[in-house]
Amino acid sequence: MRDDYVHGYSEREAVRLVDQAKTLAPLMHHDTSYPEGSRVLEAGCGVGAQTITLARNSPQAEITSVDISKPSLNHAKALIQSEGISNVQFQTADIMELPYEDETFDHVFICFVLEHLPNPVGALLSLKRVLKKGGSITVIEGDHGSCYFHPETEEAVKAWQCLIKVQTDLNCNPLMGRELYPLLNEAGFEDIQIDPRVVYVDESKGELVDGFIKKTIIAMVEGVKDQSIDSGFITPETWDKGIQDLHRSAEPSGTFFYNFFKGTAKK
Amino acid sequence: MRDDYVHGYSEREAVRLVDQAKTLAPLMHHDTSYPEGSRVLEAGCGVGAQTITLARNSPQAEITSVDISKPSLNHAKALIQSEGISNVQFQTADIMELPYEDETFDHVFICFVLEHLPNPVGALLSLKRVLKKGGSITVIEGDHGSCYFHPETEEAVKAWQCLIKVQTDLNCNPLMGRELYPLLNEAGFEDIQIDPRVVYVDESKGELVDGFIKKTIIAMVEGVKDQSIDSGFITPETWDKGIQDLHRSAEPSGTFFYNFFKGTAKK
Repeated sequence: MRDDYVHGYSEREAVRLVDQAKTLAPLMHHDTSYPEGSRVLEAGCGVGAQTITLARNSPQAEITSVDISKPSLNHAKALIQSEGISNVQFQTADIMELPYEDETFDHVFICFVLEHLPNPVGALLSLKRVLKKGGSITVIEGDHGSCYFHPETEEAVKAWQCLIKVQTDLNCNPLMGRELYPLLNEAGFEDIQIDPRVVYVDESKGELVDGFIKKTIIAMVEGVKDQSIDSGFITPETWDKGIQDLHRSAEPSGTFFYNFFKGTAKK
Repeated sequence: MRDDYVHGYSEREAVRLVDQAKTLAPLMHHDTSYPEGSRVLEAGCGVGAQTITLARNSPQAEITSVDISKPSLNHAKALIQSEGISNVQFQTADIMELPYEDETFDHVFICFVLEHLPNPVGALLSLKRVLKKGGSITVIEGDHGSCYFHPETEEAVKAWQCLIKVQTDLNCNPLMGRELYPLLNEAGFEDIQIDPRVVYVDESKGELVDGFIKKTIIAMVEGVKDQSIDSGFITPETWDKGIQDLHRSAEPSGTFFYNFFKGTAKK
C-alpha cells in the first residue's frame, strides 16, 4: 500500500468521493447493468463510492469488489452494509496479482483507478487474465486537462493546474481519460468503444452547481493546497485568489466544464 | 467590413470551412429542422458552409442568409446554386443593423459568428428584435480552450495556443462556447438550453481522423502560422515541432478532443 496515494484515505476525502459518485451516478452508470448470476469484478473499489451504484444497478449479479487498502475496504464494507446491499463480497487484493484463476469473471469494472497505477497496461493485462473470453471490461476515468470554466482567470487556472502537478508528482496520470483507447488497445482488448461523458454546468443546472462544481471539483482542488504551496507550485496569495475565482464559475453568470471517459471493450 | 477578419476570405480558407461543415453536419445540425413556410434568418452565413445543411434539413422553410461581406456572400450564392438548393435568399447586412422590421422571423440561426463580434450581447439583442415573440434562436460556437489531445507535448500545446492568441489579438473570442449561456441570458432570452457537442477522435473513428483532426483542426492552426511567428508568440522551430506533434494525435496511438456548444432559446 502506498502512503502517498492521492484519494480516499481521510474521512473527509471519503465523504467527498461518495458525494461525487452520487452526483455523477446517472451520467456514469446508467448504461452499466449486469445480468442475473453473472460474476463481476470491481477492481480498486476504494471506499465503495461506485460500489453502491454498481450493486444497485445489477441486484442479481454477484459482485466481488477488491482493493489493495484495508482501511478503504473497511469503509466500503460499512457503507454497503448501511445501505442494505447484499450482493457484494469484498477482498483485499493487488490488481497486479489478483488471487483468482484465469477466466473467473464474466465482467470487469474499474473506475478512477488506472490513473493511480504506475503500469496501467500491466493492470489491464492482469484484469484480462481473470476475465472470461468474450467478457466485457468497463473503464471510467476523468481527465483533468479537460476542465475549463467561465470566467477564466490566470489565478484560477494556476490553482487548477496545481492539481495536475501534485498528482503527476505522486506518479499518477491526471490526463488518463484521453489515453483509454490506446491503453485498452495495447492490452489487446477488442471492440473498444470510448464514450466521452461531459459534465457541463450553468445556472440552469441547479443541483450540479453545488454537487459538482463545489463539492466535487473545488473540494478536490482544495485537497492539494498544502502540497501545492509546499512544492512551490503556487504562492498562498495566488492560491486564495484562484480558489475564490473558481467559485465564480458557480455563480449565475459562470459556467463549468469537465469531461469523463467511459470505455468498454471485450476480451 | 473588417479586413482583419479571421475566417473565410481566401479560397483555401473557404474550402476548409466547407470541409469542416460537412464533417460536423451530423453532430451540429441533426436536431435543427424548421417547419414548412417558417421564415428563418441565418445571421452571418459567411461562405455558406452551414447554409447548405440548414437549407437541406428544412426544405420547406424560407431561409434568408445574411452576411456583412459581399465576397463571402458571392461564394455562398455560387455554392448554394451549384448544390441545386432553391429555398435560400441572400442579402448583404450588418447583424448590428439588420434591414428588417421588428418580429420578421420565426427562427434565427447563427453559427460560428458571435466569436468574431466585438459586442455579442448587442448582436443577440439585434437578432432578438427581428425575431417573433415565441420564436427560437439557435447559436453554435466552438471553444478553443476545450481542445486537448494525446500525446500532449509542450510544443503542440504552444502551437495550439497561438490560435487562441492570434484570434484574441484580432478582437475575437476563441473561448466563446463556454459563454453562450450567460450571453443569451444577458440578452433576455428564455428557456435557454446549452448542449455541449463533443468531437472525440481515436483510431476507431476513421473519417474523423482525416476530416476533423487534419482538415479542420490542424488546417485551422496552420492558418495562423505567419501571424504567430510575426507576433513573437512562437519560434519557427517550436512551430514546426508543434504541428508535427499535433499530427501524432491522428496516428493510431493518438486521441483528440474538441467541444462545440449548441444553444437554443426562446424570445
